[in-house]
Amino acid sequence: MSIPARPYAVLCGGLGGSRFVDALARAAGPEQVTAIVNVGDDVEILGLHVSPDLDTVLYTLAGLLDEERGWGVRDETTNALELAGQLGGETWFTLGDRDIGLHLVRSRLLREGVPLSEATRRLTESLGVGVRLLPASDEPVRTFLSTPAGELDFQTWFVARGHADEVTAVRYEGAEEARPAPGVLEAIAGAEVVFLAPSNPFVSIRPILAVPGIAEALAEKRVVAISPLVRGRALRGPLAGMMASLGYEPAVRGLAALYDGVATDLVVDPDDAEELPGALVAPIVMVAPEARAEVGRAVLEAIR
Amino acid sequence: MSIPARPYAVLCGGLGGSRFVDALARAAGPEQVTAIVNVGDDVEILGLHVSPDLDTVLYTLAGLLDEERGWGVRDETTNALELAGQLGGETWFTLGDRDIGLHLVRSRLLREGVPLSEATRRLTESLGVGVRLLPASDEPVRTFLSTPAGELDFQTWFVARGHADEVTAVRYEGAEEARPAPGVLEAIAGAEVVFLAPSNPFVSIRPILAVPGIAEALAEKRVVAISPLVRGRALRGPLAGMMASLGYEPAVRGLAALYDGVATDLVVDPDDAEELPGALVAPIVMVAPEARAEVGRAVLEAIR
Repeated sequence: MSIPARPYAVLCGGLGGSRFVDALARAAGPEQVTAIVNVGDDVEILGLHVSPDLDTVLYTLAGLLDEERGWGVRDETTNALELAGQLGGETWFTLGDRDIGLHLVRSRLLREGVPLSEATRRLTESLGVGVRLLPASDEPVRTFLSTPAGELDFQTWFVARGHADEVTAVRYEGAEEARPAPGVLEAIAGAEVVFLAPSNPFVSIRPILAVPGIAEALAEKRVVAISPLVRGRALRGPLAGMMASLGYEPAVRGLAALYDGVATDLVVDPDDAEELPGALVAPIVMVAPEARAEVGRAVLEAIR
Repeated sequence: MSIPARPYAVLCGGLGGSRFVDALARAAGPEQVTAIVNVGDDVEILGLHVSPDLDTVLYTLAGLLDEERGWGVRDETTNALELAGQLGGETWFTLGDRDIGLHLVRSRLLREGVPLSEATRRLTESLGVGVRLLPASDEPVRTFLSTPAGELDFQTWFVARGHADEVTAVRYEGAEEARPAPGVLEAIAGAEVVFLAPSNPFVSIRPILAVPGIAEALAEKRVVAISPLVRGRALRGPLAGMMASLGYEPAVRGLAALYDGVATDLVVDPDDAEELPGALVAPIVMVAPEARAEVGRAVLEAIR
């Protein structure tokens, strides 16, 4: 069974990525978009397989995301976690009750041998989401960060320790042995444009590119990176600090250096246009869901 | 490590059983009581191992039971189940959010190879419950009921079909190969009195007795059955109908016939005293938690 390729493929992580996928879906139509999502942050909590980036994209597109917090389901309760904690279960990674409903369904599918990509397809269909979501790989890829406190897995670094440790190196465990999930290479090959979403390059985009075959597939394409920085700052998260500690100027020029040889174009915010002559320019702040259709249209206009 | 035996051992199922265990614990002190609990109703829901009888006893003793419904945790929400249902998960067996917190912790322990008895010990300790809870077996024993609609597993019969199907036979799958959980035979051997709680004999008590060794251990002991019937009716559940369809008079006389050769004494409600001369008599209605200490004292008085 061959699935027709869609004009836009987006490599993305969680919050910033989900907003851009949403922007593109609102501007071009969800059925025009495939999102290829990072799995380097995946973690097992209370015996449940949690895929934070896939979940954030799914919840955003289904209108379920808690947009205030930027993660999890809105109108959420945490009753399961509270009793689990009283019984000795770990509580450092917050799982809401609705969220657990999704993790239960997916974890059971995975234990039954259903690949993550197929489980994701079913969840997406159940929630009526038109964007096609693909995990970068069905096999485990796990991001580890070197810090002065030692090497930490992503969630320990990010959630448990509040991304306070300086990052001196990043590696993607399992990536070399992993294969792109079914449909990933086809989605890239068939796309008119491949976007790198405004996600953290080190912990969202590169763990996707580290899966053998994906970077190679991009080499043939027009690859447009959307800047995750505006005036030298990420809208959320530790990117600016990571760029500095990993040897890049924490600004759109540093980003251009970082994506040199990967992206053919970089879209920056109007506030950064003077910093990087030659970059494409569009308003890319899209925190509010209402702003996203316009951002999507502006980006599509900018790359025309 | 040898654990000293306690004076009272109780074989029990869920609601009626939990109330009697609670009554005895309130009257004699929780550290005087071991409850040996039916696992024939255990079921896997959404990939979680659910032990409804163990849970009802645990929640009752921890003061967490929803006493109105007679199952699950009080002040409960069902957000996880709602989203799971939207995603294709089964919803016929209600799991509340707090309840899921417990199931997550236990299910993970079981998957890690921790036996059910040890998982139960840890949960009991975490909740500060002084009664010792033992599953009848760490191995699966599953109750199946023959009905005109065919053979049904317990939860399908009880929950999914509302125990509307007439029961013509009962069997306990896996019982012959199962072994008593560690501590069960010692708890019986060391007890002064073994109680059969006012639980359904067919689906709560007999699945315990079906585990090889347990009925044999009882043969040496004083075994006091507490009637689950008052004036020919169970306080809750389908017992009277089952007794009729399985060939027993649905009254304390039928119960005496049913437990002939197992129980040495039967305790009946004052309202049934005339029905069965020779039975011990005590008030045994203990729906309200406040009534239980008095019921416990009356039963201990009656058997003195």
